[in-house]
Amino acid sequence: MENRVCKLFGIKYPVIQGGMVWVSGAKLAAAVSNAGGLGLLGAGSMKPDLLREHIKKAKTLTDKPFGVNIPIFSKYSEDQVRVSLEEGVRIFFMSAGSPKKFTGYLKEKGCIVVHVTSTPTLAKKCEDAGVDAVVVEGFEAGGHNGRDELTTFVLIPQTKKMVKIPVIAAGGIATGQGIVAAFALGADGVQIGTRFAATIESSAHENYKKALVNARDTDTMLYLKSIIPVRLVKNSLTVKIEEMEKRCADVEEFKKVIGENAAKRAIFDGDTENGEIEAGQVAGLIDDVPSVNEVFETLIMEVKNTMEMLNNMEFSCF
Amino acid sequence: MENRVCKLFGIKYPVIQGGMVWVSGAKLAAAVSNAGGLGLLGAGSMKPDLLREHIKKAKTLTDKPFGVNIPIFSKYSEDQVRVSLEEGVRIFFMSAGSPKKFTGYLKEKGCIVVHVTSTPTLAKKCEDAGVDAVVVEGFEAGGHNGRDELTTFVLIPQTKKMVKIPVIAAGGIATGQGIVAAFALGADGVQIGTRFAATIESSAHENYKKALVNARDTDTMLYLKSIIPVRLVKNSLTVKIEEMEKRCADVEEFKKVIGENAAKRAIFDGDTENGEIEAGQVAGLIDDVPSVNEVFETLIMEVKNTMEMLNNMEFSCF
Repeated sequence: MENRVCKLFGIKYPVIQGGMVWVSGAKLAAAVSNAGGLGLLGAGSMKPDLLREHIKKAKTLTDKPFGVNIPIFSKYSEDQVRVSLEEGVRIFFMSAGSPKKFTGYLKEKGCIVVHVTSTPTLAKKCEDAGVDAVVVEGFEAGGHNGRDELTTFVLIPQTKKMVKIPVIAAGGIATGQGIVAAFALGADGVQIGTRFAATIESSAHENYKKALVNARDTDTMLYLKSIIPVRLVKNSLTVKIEEMEKRCADVEEFKKVIGENAAKRAIFDGDTENGEIEAGQVAGLIDDVPSVNEVFETLIMEVKNTMEMLNNMEFSCF
Repeated sequence: MENRVCKLFGIKYPVIQGGMVWVSGAKLAAAVSNAGGLGLLGAGSMKPDLLREHIKKAKTLTDKPFGVNIPIFSKYSEDQVRVSLEEGVRIFFMSAGSPKKFTGYLKEKGCIVVHVTSTPTLAKKCEDAGVDAVVVEGFEAGGHNGRDELTTFVLIPQTKKMVKIPVIAAGGIATGQGIVAAFALGADGVQIGTRFAATIESSAHENYKKALVNARDTDTMLYLKSIIPVRLVKNSLTVKIEEMEKRCADVEEFKKVIGENAAKRAIFDGDTENGEIEAGQVAGLIDDVPSVNEVFETLIMEVKNTMEMLNNMEFSCF
């Protein structure tokens, strides 16, 4: 039984590296593609010219397929799509917007189009819009998050019931155990974010990587639901956010306290007290900063061990 | 490899039926135990005398092991423990309170004690208090819920890293696929709630069962975080709750609008517009009201099929 995600992208392992602002530049994406997964450039933090540079650079670092993740709501999204096409990118992961906006156009250009979404009903709409696959991202995922708060555990099987296209599971996955669990629930592939954010090749600041390593089980929360929900590691900034949320402060006050470029401040500049440390709940499982190759070696070993464990189990009772 | 949960309770399948208010009386608990799982009487909605009746009745309906679930915060909890011991119950699932309160006493009496919790750190505290196993319940679970919002997908492996005692996963599990996924993540057993709430033997009102069947993917939310978080199916009552939450209404107003016995109103009396329909996110996967035996037959078939699917997969790529 050939894996549909591997076939779709022409990759060895059905493991996608999530596009992450200030984290997934050419270095990380190329390393993931070289290791047999699919690397994605996170265009969300790149103006079109910088995205072009990263695409050019990624092509010098790998001859394997890689893609771009473009948030549709961004004012740069049209230019990012244009630049990506000009530079020969053929794999597009689109997020944060309607699948109707670019899917038809990109399909006409011969591209593979994947849409990131957060509910089974929206996944069906993506399928209807003609995408090749969907990423369904659970409540446990880091960074921007859906409003319906469905978790990976319930999202995968419910999406699987509603669509025929391949389903890529995201949110909470950082280990081979998680990969097997996602496949058991019906996923055709997985998208991994936080685990790749804490690698040597991640372009994030060392302080940010350290914050992921230090984060324990209950150290992330979903904040800013009244604006755009985002999962962050707790710090001085989130204490202020929580206080404002408890008294239903207005949007203007949130904006003033959080300030401009809060994600860049923490992730790229390393101010992990006053910036937004985007990360998934799975940060509690992460306690090192290995190379991308080491991550893949561990994932592969864990998948094998997990399958062996399941097969040896007195699951025979079933 | 013998399953530790089966061994601990002397049961055939490592499947616990969650104790649910107004749902899990003698009929449901006995049916689950007869089918090879572990049935639990949900003492949360029973005064001590009624609990005694249900224990007596369950004993006439099954000669298999069954237990009680007792929320510690309840003013009846001491009497419920006493009555259970008097009637010969030896399996206690304790929730909503400190594991220090009853564990030592119950262990002295020769009982098996399990504590329900919602974070790996708290699971470790339960182990330190001497319990035999923990239930870790994820954010997707129905009814009352923890404050840290960890999902089942991240809760299982992080708890597994912190404790040696058996880990029973709860929240989001209603199928054999979910059981295999939970085991892949490290669980030793599963606790299933919502799926058993929508069975013939569940003592809930038909309207409540119908509400579970009708619930779609995004039809539950976690409400009342400023009081005690509870996951409910959306209805007229939750519209009012949401409106109050958006303007940070005070606790008194919430209490007035919700009124007394809101869970009983929906679950037992069948007023599914004005009562609290406790249910997990997995309600979206449930579309029938079978017998408990049929649920077990389906679970067993799904576990087998999922294991076969995983073994046939071009997981060989790993």
